[in-house]
Amino acid sequence: MISNKMQEQVQNSSIIRAMFEEGKRLAGIHGAENVFDFSLGNPSVEPPEEVKQAILEILNTENSISVHGYMNNSGFEEVRAAIAQSLNNKFGTTFLPQNILMTVGAAGGLNVIFKTLLNPGDEVITFAPFFGEYRSYVKNYEGELVIISPNTLNFQPNLEEFKQKITPKTKAVIINSPNNPTGVIYSEETIVKLADILREKQKEFGTDIYLVSDEPYRELAYDNANVPYLSKYYANTIIGYSFSKSLSLPGERIGYLVIPNQAADFENIIVAANIANRILGYVNAPSLFQRVVAKCLDAKVDVDTYNKNRELLYNNLVSYGYECIKPEGAFYLFVKTPIESDVEFCNLAKEKNILIVPGTAFGCPGYVRIAYCVAYRTIEKALPGFKALIAEIK
Amino acid sequence: MISNKMQEQVQNSSIIRAMFEEGKRLAGIHGAENVFDFSLGNPSVEPPEEVKQAILEILNTENSISVHGYMNNSGFEEVRAAIAQSLNNKFGTTFLPQNILMTVGAAGGLNVIFKTLLNPGDEVITFAPFFGEYRSYVKNYEGELVIISPNTLNFQPNLEEFKQKITPKTKAVIINSPNNPTGVIYSEETIVKLADILREKQKEFGTDIYLVSDEPYRELAYDNANVPYLSKYYANTIIGYSFSKSLSLPGERIGYLVIPNQAADFENIIVAANIANRILGYVNAPSLFQRVVAKCLDAKVDVDTYNKNRELLYNNLVSYGYECIKPEGAFYLFVKTPIESDVEFCNLAKEKNILIVPGTAFGCPGYVRIAYCVAYRTIEKALPGFKALIAEIK
Repeated sequence: MISNKMQEQVQNSSIIRAMFEEGKRLAGIHGAENVFDFSLGNPSVEPPEEVKQAILEILNTENSISVHGYMNNSGFEEVRAAIAQSLNNKFGTTFLPQNILMTVGAAGGLNVIFKTLLNPGDEVITFAPFFGEYRSYVKNYEGELVIISPNTLNFQPNLEEFKQKITPKTKAVIINSPNNPTGVIYSEETIVKLADILREKQKEFGTDIYLVSDEPYRELAYDNANVPYLSKYYANTIIGYSFSKSLSLPGERIGYLVIPNQAADFENIIVAANIANRILGYVNAPSLFQRVVAKCLDAKVDVDTYNKNRELLYNNLVSYGYECIKPEGAFYLFVKTPIESDVEFCNLAKEKNILIVPGTAFGCPGYVRIAYCVAYRTIEKALPGFKALIAEIK
Repeated sequence: MISNKMQEQVQNSSIIRAMFEEGKRLAGIHGAENVFDFSLGNPSVEPPEEVKQAILEILNTENSISVHGYMNNSGFEEVRAAIAQSLNNKFGTTFLPQNILMTVGAAGGLNVIFKTLLNPGDEVITFAPFFGEYRSYVKNYEGELVIISPNTLNFQPNLEEFKQKITPKTKAVIINSPNNPTGVIYSEETIVKLADILREKQKEFGTDIYLVSDEPYRELAYDNANVPYLSKYYANTIIGYSFSKSLSLPGERIGYLVIPNQAADFENIIVAANIANRILGYVNAPSLFQRVVAKCLDAKVDVDTYNKNRELLYNNLVSYGYECIKPEGAFYLFVKTPIESDVEFCNLAKEKNILIVPGTAFGCPGYVRIAYCVAYRTIEKALPGFKALIAEIK
């Protein structure tokens, strides 16, 4: 009885569901504390204390009807003003409240912008490895996701292939830096070249190509790494942000889109995105948490905890003989599998009670993603398994 | 640059936006306190005290990572269990946690279920007058909204026309009772007949037709009116609920779908709806408020306040000569316009600083919707304007 499109989705998702079931089964046999689940990007660091304080302050001082009530579909004006101001202070931009649209997380924001922009058959380019949900977000609006093959040397985008795959039907390019699943930050050099190519192709085809920057991991950068703010490099940039990771609030579904005045047709895009937010059924981003994040724009989770996890896991895996780029951000390690099949390797890992995700899910077979947003102790306990795994293969 | 579909949406929405702008303009001239805005369904009654207490209790006793973290896309298991239990106690149903899918309000739930069910060209029937957003929710998934003309005698559904308009392509029927915009509750007699027709047509065409019940106003019923719980009358029922009105939390976007085991293909629908919830970018219903509503299932806003508004507005408008059904639920009055054009009547009302919505927006020209979820004082101050309006026309 379900729609044909959803039948496809149900079939495709059954592999991942099978993994979850397997995890539960293993936990039943060995105890949950002896199953090492590195499969999910669910933050393990507490939200900063400012979050709780902000909630209490709002509940104690503000009118409950307006705290929990409807507002303009774009979000509370004062929240959007605070976010614009904060971005301007940090990045030297000149955003106004009208450039900010509060969304139900970054996932909500990406759906809103694709609904706003895409006609059936329009192409959206992304660089492998990429967050697998982009497939669905683009398909929801009858777009075609065009995947650029991975540059496994350093996981910066493969710009040569990119240049060749831009067509007159290319409506958008979506990038994600710091990247899920690699943890790599696209360098300023990469961004400058990518912007040059886009401008060149816009001119060649007489089109506008929007660069959609999916930035849930912006705040999770290590060793003071620079994460370029894309609207400074390319006019047709639209930014999707989420507080899921920076404030450890993934369940609260709170983020925003930035639609700058420099973007072509920005006035129509702002109006249409506002409507898309409404008719897709989001209506508005959750109201209390809009107000909460506005009070926490200078707060962030303790990134050092993730950094310790990163060092522990990276250093040990490399010492065991695994090949892997040291991530500069996010909380994932993207490791080359010592056997050809990443799916097979994940199955072997499961025998050591280690749950990880095959790179195939991110358009990059031959690798696995290890999410290290877990307890330090979980990594310590899993290390012997990782060591035995590669030793047995070699 | 925006998509063709969104261009249409932008054009259609400009009338409503123009009304908002007009409201702002009037407020600028006459002062906000002298502009009587009856155009929005934004609750004017505070959330019950239990909401704040629940938030404080959760923040003070539960682990912040899990309070604000990801859970299964369907929602927290214990929240779904609490809701199922509460429904079973109230309505004698036998729902399990698996039958409940937590959603981003009812609007999110309706989008999830239409994404789950509809193939392009599938028909969804609704009864005028109806909540205008159904047009977009159905169109989002390439469905066709089939509108049954209004029965202006008592605003119960026009079942004769309904019977004729069901076709082999009818995939769903969406109803909303207590109804926005009429405040009418579809009677048990209506529901029994409607269910009989659906069963008959299912048999005739060899199809399954889902009855989608959109129930944000279930708790807002006056004079102990009975609001039939539809799954008891028809197996292929799917219920969309929202806490927006019952707890005055419209901005928080929290609701749920009920997909009963009796519904045809329920197992696939549950799995697909879970995936639709994820890929539409909702991911999950906001996490803190999932836990909050689970603690407030027996709480509700002070309906008596709305009832006083209803009595004041209804009794006076009728005494001035307006024709109108006395609403049994929700917080809207649906009034016959004393001139033919509802749009023109709304313009005349604006001259008295009264903002109301033409019935055309709900598929029922010749009527206007007056949302009385406002302060009692606002109604009192607006009454002379309503009186003068009809006097001048007659």
